[in-house]
Amino acid sequence: MKRGMFITLEGPDGSGKSTIAPLVYEALKDDGIDIILTREPGGVKIAEDIRKIILDPNNTEMDVRTEALLYAAARRQHLMQKVLPALEKGTSVLCERFIDSSLAYQGVGRKIGFEEVYALNRFAIDDHFPDLTVYFDIDEKTGLERIKKGRDDIDRLDGESLAFHSLVHEGYKMVLERFKERIVIVDATKSITEVKEDVYKIIKESL
Amino acid sequence: MKRGMFITLEGPDGSGKSTIAPLVYEALKDDGIDIILTREPGGVKIAEDIRKIILDPNNTEMDVRTEALLYAAARRQHLMQKVLPALEKGTSVLCERFIDSSLAYQGVGRKIGFEEVYALNRFAIDDHFPDLTVYFDIDEKTGLERIKKGRDDIDRLDGESLAFHSLVHEGYKMVLERFKERIVIVDATKSITEVKEDVYKIIKESL
Repeated sequence: MKRGMFITLEGPDGSGKSTIAPLVYEALKDDGIDIILTREPGGVKIAEDIRKIILDPNNTEMDVRTEALLYAAARRQHLMQKVLPALEKGTSVLCERFIDSSLAYQGVGRKIGFEEVYALNRFAIDDHFPDLTVYFDIDEKTGLERIKKGRDDIDRLDGESLAFHSLVHEGYKMVLERFKERIVIVDATKSITEVKEDVYKIIKESL
Repeated sequence: MKRGMFITLEGPDGSGKSTIAPLVYEALKDDGIDIILTREPGGVKIAEDIRKIILDPNNTEMDVRTEALLYAAARRQHLMQKVLPALEKGTSVLCERFIDSSLAYQGVGRKIGFEEVYALNRFAIDDHFPDLTVYFDIDEKTGLERIKKGRDDIDRLDGESLAFHSLVHEGYKMVLERFKERIVIVDATKSITEVKEDVYKIIKESL
């Protein structure tokens, strides 16, 4: 049986991944394509349990490496329990966020180091890299404006989080440079309809 | 201020660590030594939360690498939040289980590979190795008899767990070979009083 295709959607906060993902997924389903939509962190019980620890607002003392290890643990479980079984049955997988998010957010954003977080994630994923990654490209300023719009608590976007947002952009630039061969970039500043159409076409052609 | 000393207790199940640890700790306290007793996985809220996921009997689908990542995450948090702050204040730390347990249990017992689990744990602990590790040495047969004695459900010691127990012993042999310079071996087949006295003396002399 033909193995399914493993496709990830990546990009900084405010780039529109979560809005576009279900639209593209529905369009592919309508074409009769055997595909599932999933996201990190979560997707299976153990990964959801881990997600709760990461997102628990009481866990203010969480060290950045603990966080990176927890993301890697959730990634591993989601990969083994949901992604790989689907691929092996011939079902393609459309997944919001994967290894590149950790490289940008933990490696560069949290300043652990790109290479150290890469090595950690190699432990988690073995050689199960995505076949295709669609990158939602957005300039820092537009991304930030979109985040602000979606929030009531604009005050939370203080100096630290602005600097963090900026580092995540830097991190994704390093990801784009490093993994050119599997990444296709879309202009995420366009309208939802246009971005959806671009992502849909890229995936459709590659399937 | 003089930094505290980081001491770990290691050894396979049935080697008596949990019985001996509080006895040695009390004896050291009675001598006026500034020391805390702690254990892995756990010791701080986030690590306890992680521990619950690892030990949840419903999590039967947990992948061995997910488990290794979770142990490393709990280790990191416990190290940063409890062990290092104590050491920096001049308090010594007596800790049941640390990196060597993961090398023996996950690396060899669960067959992930000694070097891979070592690399993962280097990410978690940086260069914060123990100053001293006391290894509770016990032959496989005696260790197994002690485990059986402590359990009502002897049936659970099926073929798989016997093989696992044997691999953990192999793993600890590799640990002893690799980290000779920080490990002192005690004969854990002796009586509780004798083992306690041996461990107490080793730690007392090194402090």
